[in-house]
Amino acid sequence: MTKRANNLSIDAKRLWSDLMETARIGGTAKGGIRRLTLGEEDRRVRDWFRAECESLGCSVHVDEVGNMFAIRPGRNNALPPIAMGSHLDTQPTGGKFDGVLGVLAGLECLRTLHAADYETHAPVMLVNWTNEEGSRFAPAMLGSGVHAGVFDRTYADTRKDGEGVSFAEAIEAISYRGEVGIGSTPIGAMFELHIEQGPILEAEGDTIGVVTGVQGMRWYDVEITGRESHAGSTPMAMRRDALPAAAALVLAVQAAARACPGAVATVGTIAVHPGSRNVIPGAASLSVDLRHPDAGALDGTEAAIEQALAAICAEHGVTGTLTRIWDSPPVPFDPGCIASVRDAAGSLGYRMRDIVSGAGHDAAYIARIAPTAMIFVPCAGGLSHNEAEDASFEDCGAGAQVLLQAVLDYDRRLAETKPGATP
Amino acid sequence: MTKRANNLSIDAKRLWSDLMETARIGGTAKGGIRRLTLGEEDRRVRDWFRAECESLGCSVHVDEVGNMFAIRPGRNNALPPIAMGSHLDTQPTGGKFDGVLGVLAGLECLRTLHAADYETHAPVMLVNWTNEEGSRFAPAMLGSGVHAGVFDRTYADTRKDGEGVSFAEAIEAISYRGEVGIGSTPIGAMFELHIEQGPILEAEGDTIGVVTGVQGMRWYDVEITGRESHAGSTPMAMRRDALPAAAALVLAVQAAARACPGAVATVGTIAVHPGSRNVIPGAASLSVDLRHPDAGALDGTEAAIEQALAAICAEHGVTGTLTRIWDSPPVPFDPGCIASVRDAAGSLGYRMRDIVSGAGHDAAYIARIAPTAMIFVPCAGGLSHNEAEDASFEDCGAGAQVLLQAVLDYDRRLAETKPGATP
Repeated sequence: MTKRANNLSIDAKRLWSDLMETARIGGTAKGGIRRLTLGEEDRRVRDWFRAECESLGCSVHVDEVGNMFAIRPGRNNALPPIAMGSHLDTQPTGGKFDGVLGVLAGLECLRTLHAADYETHAPVMLVNWTNEEGSRFAPAMLGSGVHAGVFDRTYADTRKDGEGVSFAEAIEAISYRGEVGIGSTPIGAMFELHIEQGPILEAEGDTIGVVTGVQGMRWYDVEITGRESHAGSTPMAMRRDALPAAAALVLAVQAAARACPGAVATVGTIAVHPGSRNVIPGAASLSVDLRHPDAGALDGTEAAIEQALAAICAEHGVTGTLTRIWDSPPVPFDPGCIASVRDAAGSLGYRMRDIVSGAGHDAAYIARIAPTAMIFVPCAGGLSHNEAEDASFEDCGAGAQVLLQAVLDYDRRLAETKPGATP
Repeated sequence: MTKRANNLSIDAKRLWSDLMETARIGGTAKGGIRRLTLGEEDRRVRDWFRAECESLGCSVHVDEVGNMFAIRPGRNNALPPIAMGSHLDTQPTGGKFDGVLGVLAGLECLRTLHAADYETHAPVMLVNWTNEEGSRFAPAMLGSGVHAGVFDRTYADTRKDGEGVSFAEAIEAISYRGEVGIGSTPIGAMFELHIEQGPILEAEGDTIGVVTGVQGMRWYDVEITGRESHAGSTPMAMRRDALPAAAALVLAVQAAARACPGAVATVGTIAVHPGSRNVIPGAASLSVDLRHPDAGALDGTEAAIEQALAAICAEHGVTGTLTRIWDSPPVPFDPGCIASVRDAAGSLGYRMRDIVSGAGHDAAYIARIAPTAMIFVPCAGGLSHNEAEDASFEDCGAGAQVLLQAVLDYDRRLAETKPGATP
């Protein structure tokens, strides 16, 4: 076991104050935040973030897609920094915690280190990743994806919002096109604190989720084609109604997920054509979102859904296609980082459990290039991407404390294994 | 048995020529018609209709909602006219036959009577009902509904199209606000020829459908409320997903209709909220269209759907409501008119069957104030409300011939029972 810095305590009230203060930047009447990527509110919160980090003696660097890196030097600045961070952009009707907690808790850790004049072995870095939400510019996790080499800068620059404004135009407009080259900021490890965005921790009474990885995710488009006809004059036996077939598939998707422990599957969109009360739908389109921590289980569930679709089409006299449009493999987090989180939560006495992230996060891309882990805290009712999103004062503080301990734990281990190492 | 005027034959080629000629007014690239109620194309076809009728010696009267009545005098003009007719407006992407066939076949009957200088006992009248489709101004069958006292003029005038233009503004714009008072044009009986808009006649090889009535129709709105949550982080067992419940209801609606011979039920629209790939739907809305010729059967099927909804909600942990928003009782047509149609088709040697109309028609409202019946002819594949809608030259001609015979048959019976009667 390594030594701990148990004497360093974050200030939960100061963190909460930061959360509430910045929530006013884009704050909505219903208590949420609307802070779209690279909009005016994003500029304001970025300016605030930069000023706060600089006031703690950190140097703040911005890369070509607006990712912001605030670096606090350590004893051995040849080592790549240990990063904390998440994102400050929100959904159009987002809450006060999604992403924001991870950045502001990181800031609180920097404040605590600064106040204690504590010197880490490696540098510590706080990152605000650009466009995690993907609400204004799809896809999500764009900034971390660019940093990890998943997307290139041109791809990012050419994304457009719903009004036709490109990412490039938007980043120039708020003057957040930095000079740091894409991917040139090294990351020694990354810890991301985030609300769970699900109901498990709350339901089980746990304070800390030790996130061991991110589920694999697959998206599918389903198209079912029947025959459009008159609702009044077409006998039941002569119909080729696309909607009952789609309905049967919705239920089959549920059944396939329930048959595979750990799987979740969701049909989040459905549309019928022509969509008129008195016309039998000639076509139906729906989406399937399938997730599981294990790729083999994804394969099996996908096959079950495909078989079900074939059987349903035969039964309903329609045709159907299932097209996989996105495949994000399961991401296992780094055992060393996970251990630092688990040890930190354990030493602090928090009720905890291992958990797999159901959602995508910046950490999932960074895990491709650096040891990474995440810390979850509960959110009320599992609600997220919603102005009513809520997390408790105590849980936010606990998460920030675990974040600090995990970083310091990881740093100590590093000091022991690489006392004078260069990257 | 009454005497027949079997020596009078309509000219199927002339009818077909009228169908093809007027199809150019609003004709679409795909061979259909876009002739929205009270639009410029509707004005043009109305002008054409008026001119053709007047050229046959008919007087054309227009009422305050634009219904056009072309009257051909008989021997006893104190009798209310025997009417033929349907509508010349179309769906936005409508076909060449829906409604149009009934009006143009009526015109062909007038041409035939005129050419033969045939004098009927009662006057004969051809009607072009305003806004049968309801596509531009909901509800459907507005002109016939106003004539029958179902709606009043103010209601009609205040209907608005999707651009906010009122019926009153539209009718003034094309100068088709007539001076004839609402409902003041008497109707002694009405015969409406129409394409079936369903697949039954074609499937059974029949040429003529003797329409004995119009099904009762009920429309419902279903609202299902679950809980919106994250598709990735909400385990299957902790979901309250509105869509699988809606899907189960779609299948239950089908099952309820199949369990009741003669019933048809359709879910033509479905929407989920928020409608995002990675969000579990918190709400689902769908429509149900239920039809049956018998009100008791409608009651029983409605009850079965209500019971199914309650069971589904309990199983899925959601809440649901079924609201009946429209109830159109079954309409039995007049036995005398039906007999005239059946006798006409029989004497002409056409394969025929009794049939109940699955769709609403102007005749359904007129049946409230006058003896009424309809004649159906097959349409290809049962397809209607579609630019590909099709009916054969032969069947259109057969329908027009049956229409003429039925009118003359009804007129003869009238002459026998009311040789000198006044209305």
